[in-house]
Amino acid sequence: MLNFEFQNPTRIVFGKDQVSQLSRLLPRDAKILFTYGQGSIKRNGVYDAVLGALKGFTYVEFGGIEPNPSYETLMKAVEIVKKEGISFLLAVGGGSVIDGTKFIAAAPFVAGDPWDILTGKAEVTKALPLGTVLTLPATGTEMNGNAVISRYSTKEKLAFSSPLVKPVFSILDPQYCFTLPDTQISNGVVDAFVHVMEQYLTYPVGAGVQDGFSESLLRTLMEVGPKVLHNKTNYTYAATFMWATTMALNGLISAGVPEDWSTHAIGHELTALHGIDHAKTLAIVLPGVMHVMRENKKDKLIQYGHRVLGIQNPSADNIDQIIAMTEAFFHAMQIKTRLSDYGVGKDTVQIIVDRFRQRNQLLGERADMGPEVIEKVLLSRL
Amino acid sequence: MLNFEFQNPTRIVFGKDQVSQLSRLLPRDAKILFTYGQGSIKRNGVYDAVLGALKGFTYVEFGGIEPNPSYETLMKAVEIVKKEGISFLLAVGGGSVIDGTKFIAAAPFVAGDPWDILTGKAEVTKALPLGTVLTLPATGTEMNGNAVISRYSTKEKLAFSSPLVKPVFSILDPQYCFTLPDTQISNGVVDAFVHVMEQYLTYPVGAGVQDGFSESLLRTLMEVGPKVLHNKTNYTYAATFMWATTMALNGLISAGVPEDWSTHAIGHELTALHGIDHAKTLAIVLPGVMHVMRENKKDKLIQYGHRVLGIQNPSADNIDQIIAMTEAFFHAMQIKTRLSDYGVGKDTVQIIVDRFRQRNQLLGERADMGPEVIEKVLLSRL
Repeated sequence: MLNFEFQNPTRIVFGKDQVSQLSRLLPRDAKILFTYGQGSIKRNGVYDAVLGALKGFTYVEFGGIEPNPSYETLMKAVEIVKKEGISFLLAVGGGSVIDGTKFIAAAPFVAGDPWDILTGKAEVTKALPLGTVLTLPATGTEMNGNAVISRYSTKEKLAFSSPLVKPVFSILDPQYCFTLPDTQISNGVVDAFVHVMEQYLTYPVGAGVQDGFSESLLRTLMEVGPKVLHNKTNYTYAATFMWATTMALNGLISAGVPEDWSTHAIGHELTALHGIDHAKTLAIVLPGVMHVMRENKKDKLIQYGHRVLGIQNPSADNIDQIIAMTEAFFHAMQIKTRLSDYGVGKDTVQIIVDRFRQRNQLLGERADMGPEVIEKVLLSRL
Repeated sequence: MLNFEFQNPTRIVFGKDQVSQLSRLLPRDAKILFTYGQGSIKRNGVYDAVLGALKGFTYVEFGGIEPNPSYETLMKAVEIVKKEGISFLLAVGGGSVIDGTKFIAAAPFVAGDPWDILTGKAEVTKALPLGTVLTLPATGTEMNGNAVISRYSTKEKLAFSSPLVKPVFSILDPQYCFTLPDTQISNGVVDAFVHVMEQYLTYPVGAGVQDGFSESLLRTLMEVGPKVLHNKTNYTYAATFMWATTMALNGLISAGVPEDWSTHAIGHELTALHGIDHAKTLAIVLPGVMHVMRENKKDKLIQYGHRVLGIQNPSADNIDQIIAMTEAFFHAMQIKTRLSDYGVGKDTVQIIVDRFRQRNQLLGERADMGPEVIEKVLLSRL
């Protein structure tokens, strides 16, 4: 096991009708910016419930944060924060709204262009506190310090991470899953599944607890994912799905083990260039990473095949089967797994490879995935 | 899944030689009370390492906290806290030292006799911040708000719990396990195992994530426990053992599920009356609770038999086998499981049953274990 530090102070308030706890959780004397997306919360009752809980508080609304939240939109909110003297942010929505609100929290304190915290030119040194009401389980953003922001003008999609933007509290009501479109449930399950994989599918370091937790989350997502999709209003399935997505990326299963975020890094480029949903890019790329990096990842692939997929006495000979079973799970979640399924061809592969080459960016748990390897991964997914 | 709130802000600093981080983690301007036990840290080098890290800090030492920390001893430390104007507590030791230090943290702010927070007559309303260096994995106290304190004059052993006494930080160095006596390793593994059981072995509520995590911890402890005992200086085994004991009782696996702390409650009485090690009392009592409460716990007993013990297609007919396999694990950890193994007979059973009767205390996840049921549990363990 590697040395590690783990701390996650986010207060999770989980369960039926817990949005009613908002008035207890929000700081009384704060001036609040209430952020949300493109209006789904006005259709499912969440908006009204939040307004009800906000009675007696001082707040300003900022709606319209898009899927793949944009620097351009978020900078408008940053202006409001400065002008209105906002002291607390309340994000109500899915990963995009919460990620965007994390950027709004940190941006006012960046000297120069806040985009610099995405490119790594600036660090997050201070941030406004934020709380969240999660309406769409997927990214785990409700209990971590990560955010992914897009810059539409340059077709870039980049991430930043800071403990300073971990939510103070997050309210998780599984009932919000009942009205989600199929595609958002599919995306959420697959996103969380790949999050676990990127913290698990590297090489063994004798981390029995972490491996056990990761394997348990993978099994749970494989089991409950199709059930949620076909029984949307089953509270038990929704609650298991929701809690699994939170646990999939809150720092717990990555503590003390190597990580490999190559699938996310490559996937972000597909979203930036073609607008393919985040989770769908992961379902395309992961099988390619497993295929090309099979030697590096051999021991963990076999362990996954045995403990998660239930293959008896697996060996390296089973790796193709293991990849096929993983892909079959994505298909069961109604997610396609080939670039050609989205009309993406070799020209895009070259653009992406060039981007990694220009950035001198090496991926993988051993930082040995250069442009040539990334090209192989993508070509294997045509 | 039941509604729940989960928050655990303790910073874990885990790994080789991490005691060197102390000087970074301690507040610079604090007046520190450095608490420890009966001197084992002076023999294994931890004391010297802590003193080294404390250079430049203002501190007072308080050694001599006993196993089963006593109200009588701890009140002497409370006097020092008041007299010296202590503002931060640093506990270096195992569960007894850390639990005792939690009492020292809370006691100065109790109006009246601080023992009242044990009996429930008073609540913890404020506490000094504390940090820990864990030298003995077992109780999980390094990442929770629980403490168990004994009052020798009345032979009582009681628990209190408050988020205000959760450590600010805990340093966990698995190397400290290398010099532990066998009995402390056995006790630590069995204590953590029973902690998981008391949050797991109730009735199913469709909590896939929590059940998966609990089962994974049970399997890990069963697998690594005997290995640690027979290979004390293997870092990987020690690290897995240590992290499993922390995760076994930090609020995570109990979030959203029913709990049954009857084994602990009955076990505490055996320690209070006969001085039997805490973990050893649990190994005596748990099989009795499984035996007597088999109808209440049937579904979870079968699930445990299948997913943890690996029994194919288990049914209620396997419950005796499931109990026997659990007891066999305790024996493999060199822990005896009968009252008679410790010279305890029927007279003690009556004293314990009378205590529960006098307190009108009902145990179990359905609060249906009254004195008669507790008597049956203990009589089944003679």
